[in-house]
Amino acid sequence: MMYRHLFSKPSKQAPGEGDSINAKLLLQAGFIHQELSGVYSWLPLGLRVLRKVENIIREELNNLGAQEVLLTALQPQENWEKTGRWNTVDVLFKLPSQTGKEYALGPTAEEIVTPLVGSFLQSYKDLPLAVYQIQTKFRDELRAKSGVLRGREFLMKDMYSFHETSADFDEYYAQVIDVYLKIFNRIGVEVKVTEASGGAFSNKISHEFQIITPAGEDQLIACAKCRFAQNTEVATLAVGEACPKCGGELIATKGVEAGNIFDLNTRFTDAFKIAVTTASGERVAPHMGCYGLGVSRLVGAIVEARHDERGMIWPDSVAPLTVHLVSLGSGEAWEPVLEKSKDIYRTLMASGIEPLWDDRSDVSAGEKLAAADLIGIPYRVVISPKSLAAGGVELKRRDSIESRIVSCDEILGLITTKSVGPSL
Amino acid sequence: MMYRHLFSKPSKQAPGEGDSINAKLLLQAGFIHQELSGVYSWLPLGLRVLRKVENIIREELNNLGAQEVLLTALQPQENWEKTGRWNTVDVLFKLPSQTGKEYALGPTAEEIVTPLVGSFLQSYKDLPLAVYQIQTKFRDELRAKSGVLRGREFLMKDMYSFHETSADFDEYYAQVIDVYLKIFNRIGVEVKVTEASGGAFSNKISHEFQIITPAGEDQLIACAKCRFAQNTEVATLAVGEACPKCGGELIATKGVEAGNIFDLNTRFTDAFKIAVTTASGERVAPHMGCYGLGVSRLVGAIVEARHDERGMIWPDSVAPLTVHLVSLGSGEAWEPVLEKSKDIYRTLMASGIEPLWDDRSDVSAGEKLAAADLIGIPYRVVISPKSLAAGGVELKRRDSIESRIVSCDEILGLITTKSVGPSL
Repeated sequence: MMYRHLFSKPSKQAPGEGDSINAKLLLQAGFIHQELSGVYSWLPLGLRVLRKVENIIREELNNLGAQEVLLTALQPQENWEKTGRWNTVDVLFKLPSQTGKEYALGPTAEEIVTPLVGSFLQSYKDLPLAVYQIQTKFRDELRAKSGVLRGREFLMKDMYSFHETSADFDEYYAQVIDVYLKIFNRIGVEVKVTEASGGAFSNKISHEFQIITPAGEDQLIACAKCRFAQNTEVATLAVGEACPKCGGELIATKGVEAGNIFDLNTRFTDAFKIAVTTASGERVAPHMGCYGLGVSRLVGAIVEARHDERGMIWPDSVAPLTVHLVSLGSGEAWEPVLEKSKDIYRTLMASGIEPLWDDRSDVSAGEKLAAADLIGIPYRVVISPKSLAAGGVELKRRDSIESRIVSCDEILGLITTKSVGPSL
Repeated sequence: MMYRHLFSKPSKQAPGEGDSINAKLLLQAGFIHQELSGVYSWLPLGLRVLRKVENIIREELNNLGAQEVLLTALQPQENWEKTGRWNTVDVLFKLPSQTGKEYALGPTAEEIVTPLVGSFLQSYKDLPLAVYQIQTKFRDELRAKSGVLRGREFLMKDMYSFHETSADFDEYYAQVIDVYLKIFNRIGVEVKVTEASGGAFSNKISHEFQIITPAGEDQLIACAKCRFAQNTEVATLAVGEACPKCGGELIATKGVEAGNIFDLNTRFTDAFKIAVTTASGERVAPHMGCYGLGVSRLVGAIVEARHDERGMIWPDSVAPLTVHLVSLGSGEAWEPVLEKSKDIYRTLMASGIEPLWDDRSDVSAGEKLAAADLIGIPYRVVISPKSLAAGGVELKRRDSIESRIVSCDEILGLITTKSVGPSL
């Protein structure tokens, strides 16, 4: 991708409107654009991150055997009446239509997925099963805040599982915890598996996957050593006590809830009168579980957790691109820099690593390097008269302060193997 | 993919609710599920088709140099006031919110994309540029009809281009016609490039890409030989006259509009006071073009154009899967069939061709073969005691009535090369 073709170039000035670090950095870098309070469009670089997060989630859920669907945002009022939620979910957008009917604009999908899956269920042999979607959700928040962490329109992965027995649900629930940890690990963020309220549908606790950051809205009691935490809403332990999992010290901290998983019991299958026949001929309502992951929120949480005063620092797995190629020089020194840059661009492209190449000749070196730091692509390769004189190009990882000169032949090996050595 | 794992299995009965061939077949085959009139969820097999159509469009638009974004569905009322369309677009959903503001729920994105792109534009050097998105759109249709051909919620690709001059726009417009023809060609449908009204923003004609089918809502005068057509709304030619492009005979027919492209002139850049500086220092409003493609509609149009009395007939490029593997047999003949089927399943998977494998032993041969015809995957491979006795498996293309026995070693070559010969 040529930097000069990018229509949404980073700005030199920090934006006025950002209400949080993630909003400020994502706006300034041209990753998102605000349309309304809490409503953001995704621009080319931001969309690339979003898609990479999506695809990691998709791969892991497909491996688990979950089936991807795409449910509707417009939902019938009568379904929400059946579950008794039409007038109780305060963030539910209600959409009048020319037909005289009102629709719900989906903040979640239990009211759609339960009768849908139910229409295909016959016997216990059809269970367990899980379906998921990655879909835009809508919440009529009185106050949107914290950039893409809490918006009125956002991208979410929601999964629903159906089981013959609660024991089978419990087993699946534990499996999903492992899959979620795998997803967060691949995305490059650390999470606390946090005990939280099970909500209105269950006496059991539920689990939230909290990314620790001062921007978080949730107050936690968390282990300083392991993944254990409790949301203060349900905390039974106190700061200074020993972690029940590992004995580490419990501390007070804040988190962003990137995912949550909980027990729906038969709350929704009862409401829609869904039942399957068991092996012994009984009719039972399937036990449901619900598993959310905030996709756009996760992008914001990554920024909150990984940035410095110069900009964002993307994990390799979800970075918009892997290499930021910066050509520097002027006058008669420009031509050899450009030639060498072209070689490297082609070599990278040929091996499937698409770089962002800044070959602008009308912009200062300082401005180009500042843009690279702001955008936060993992590898920066600078080609300049100085680097060529030193025998190659300057390679630097965004998450390191050190750089080194490497020969052009070396670059590919250093980037693809991600083994740039301890100094980078 | 194991057929028995698929939660949304085809039904033996045609559905009551389908209002068109595409709705009936997509519903019966478990590709979609109706939530409201004109509002359909996409189930695993249907979603696979949708994604393949999406990806073909994405590839071709990226090749053209267009930049992908994801704009918002929630749009500010004030933007629609600025363009004067808040009260004139009769299908515009207006969404009240707790904040007291009303939002538009996007049926199109000019009101978002124009100020967004405008905020990044400085001089003529930033032009031309084009951005596109593949996004769910909403239309408050008084009457939804024809299955996924005209719904209240649907997936659409919308692209917007920005130019310094109208001459530059004209050139780009012609390029997009070629790209669209490439897309339709890859998807496997024939279209008529149809002259239609330019709408309110231009005196020029616009072009619609019409798929010829009796289910179409649009009346056309079309050439029987080439791609030329006129929408009767603007027709200057009559049935029986000679085609101005090729001399072929003009006939009356019906089409589904799968795409349209048109000139927005400076209608929206004027409304939002967007201007760029030209080389001579003037400030001019960029000339815009708009290019739509109905993604979910296209899936319906393919079904309308390609089906028979037994079911759907997917083009190879967008079929949910490429091979439908059907294992038949019972009693002691079942074991060898199952073994051979496993071999073939593994061989196909190893070469990147994921089959849909129906290994159910509690269902009749007739039911399995009927399901295969209904789903319409391009290649059907039947493994049965009879085929094994004849030396292999029975290979049949969905679009042919003939089948033949091929050895197991042959299958891969016949499927990957798509050269099953004239008899298939």
